[in-house]
Amino acid sequence: MNNVVVIGSGNVAESLARAVAESGVHLVQLWARNEARAAEIAALAGCGWSSRPGELAPADLYLVAVSDRAVAEVAAALPIPENAVVAHTAGSVPLEALPAKYARRAVFYPLQTFTQGRRVDWAEIPLFIEASTPALQAELEAFAGRLSRRVLRADSALRARLHLAAVFACNFANHMYALGERLMGDAGLDFDLLKPLIAETTAKALGAPSPSAVQTGPAVRGDMPTQERHAAMLGDGLLQTIYRSISQNIWETSRKI
Amino acid sequence: MNNVVVIGSGNVAESLARAVAESGVHLVQLWARNEARAAEIAALAGCGWSSRPGELAPADLYLVAVSDRAVAEVAAALPIPENAVVAHTAGSVPLEALPAKYARRAVFYPLQTFTQGRRVDWAEIPLFIEASTPALQAELEAFAGRLSRRVLRADSALRARLHLAAVFACNFANHMYALGERLMGDAGLDFDLLKPLIAETTAKALGAPSPSAVQTGPAVRGDMPTQERHAAMLGDGLLQTIYRSISQNIWETSRKI
Repeated sequence: MNNVVVIGSGNVAESLARAVAESGVHLVQLWARNEARAAEIAALAGCGWSSRPGELAPADLYLVAVSDRAVAEVAAALPIPENAVVAHTAGSVPLEALPAKYARRAVFYPLQTFTQGRRVDWAEIPLFIEASTPALQAELEAFAGRLSRRVLRADSALRARLHLAAVFACNFANHMYALGERLMGDAGLDFDLLKPLIAETTAKALGAPSPSAVQTGPAVRGDMPTQERHAAMLGDGLLQTIYRSISQNIWETSRKI
Repeated sequence: MNNVVVIGSGNVAESLARAVAESGVHLVQLWARNEARAAEIAALAGCGWSSRPGELAPADLYLVAVSDRAVAEVAAALPIPENAVVAHTAGSVPLEALPAKYARRAVFYPLQTFTQGRRVDWAEIPLFIEASTPALQAELEAFAGRLSRRVLRADSALRARLHLAAVFACNFANHMYALGERLMGDAGLDFDLLKPLIAETTAKALGAPSPSAVQTGPAVRGDMPTQERHAAMLGDGLLQTIYRSISQNIWETSRKI
C-alpha cells in the first residue's frame, strides 16, 4: 500500500490526508466533489487533487473519508479499480456498506474528533482496523502502523460500541460545556470564566484511575436540596430532564463503587 | 486581613490553605475536626493546626471551607470572634447561612474543582466575592486579589446560577467521561483508548469561540438511524433517557445558531 488516494473533503479527510502525506506513504491524490475544499486540502497535504470521477487516480488504497451516510454511495459511484483496497473511516458504518464488488474492502476507524484547521497527533490516535480477509487485515494494520502507535482490531459490532462510547466522551461532554456556556450567558457572564474549571476537570479525569473516582458536586454527594433548586432554575423542559437523569445516574453509579 | 484561619479538611480547604500561605498572607492556623487531615494540610501549607474548638486561633479572617451543609453549623459552633470577618466558600449556599452575629460576613467562592493532592493555578481561578457591607466587599476583594487575577462580584442569586453552570461544565462533563469509560469497559476495551479523544474534545472547546460551534457526531448531524441504533444498544433505562435527551438538545441548539 504505497500509493494512496484519500476521498472526501470533510474534517476527517483533511486530517487524514495530512497524516498520510507526513507518514512518508505516497499520497497520490485528494479526490472530492467539492472542488474548492479538494484544492485546499491538497495544498495542505502537498498532493494532487481532482473533483471529477473520471480523473480519480490509480492507487493501491482508497480511503473513503466521507460522511457516514455517503460511504456506500460514493464507494459505488466512483471508478475505483476493483482489485484495489477500499477502506472507509466511519465509526458507525459496517464493513458491508462498501460494495461487494471490492473483494478487498476494509474499515480504518480513527478514534478521534477532527476539526478543520486543527492538527492532532496521529501517533496517539487509536486506529481500529477491520478487513475482509486475514491477509488484508495484516496489510492494513501495517499501513496503519506507519500513522499511529496504537493499531487495534475491531469488527463492525465492536466498532459500533466504541463509537457509542466516543459519543458520550466527546459529543456529549462537549454539549455539557455548551450548556455551561449558555447558563453563564443567561447570567450575563463570560464563557471564559468557566475555562479553568473545564481544563482542570479534564486534566483530573485523564490523570485519575477513573473519572467516576474523582466526581464532585451535588449529585455524587446526594445533596437533594441543591439539586431541587437547580432543577427549578432550569424550568420544566428538556434541560431539567437532562439535569435530573444525569444526576440520578451519577448517584447510582457512585453507590456501586 | 493579614491573619487568616482556614477552617475545614476537604479538597477546597487543602487547596485554599496552600494558596493563602503562598500568597504571603499570614496563615495562622488550619482548623478542622478531622485531626489527621488537619495535621496533613497544615504540613502542606506550613502553618499551625488544631482540631479543638477551644484552640481556634485569633485572626482577622476566617475562611469556612467546609461542605455546603456544614457551613451554618460550623460557623455557629466555633468560638470565632464576632468582630472578625467570616466567609464561606460554597457555591450554592447563600450569605445568610452564616450566623447573623457576625456583622462582617461574606462569601469567597472559587469557580474551580478541587481534588486532594492536586495543585491548581489560583491566579487563574475566578473568585466571586459577596460581602455584608460595601466596605467589607472592597476589603475582601483586595484580599482575593492577592490570590487571583480574576476577582468578581456575585450576590447569592448570581452565585447559584454560576454554580449550576459549573455543575454542567464540570460534574456532568466528567460523568460523560465516566459513561464513556463504562461503555468501553463493557466492550472489553481500556479507558486509555478514549484519552486522546477526551483531550482533543476539551482543547477544541477551549480554543473555539463556543463549544456548540465545534460540535460533531450523530446528534448535530441529525443522523437518526445511528441514534436509534445507539439507543437500542443502551437498553430501556436511564442511559437511554440520557442519550435521547442530550441528543435532542444538541439538535435543537444547533438549529438556533
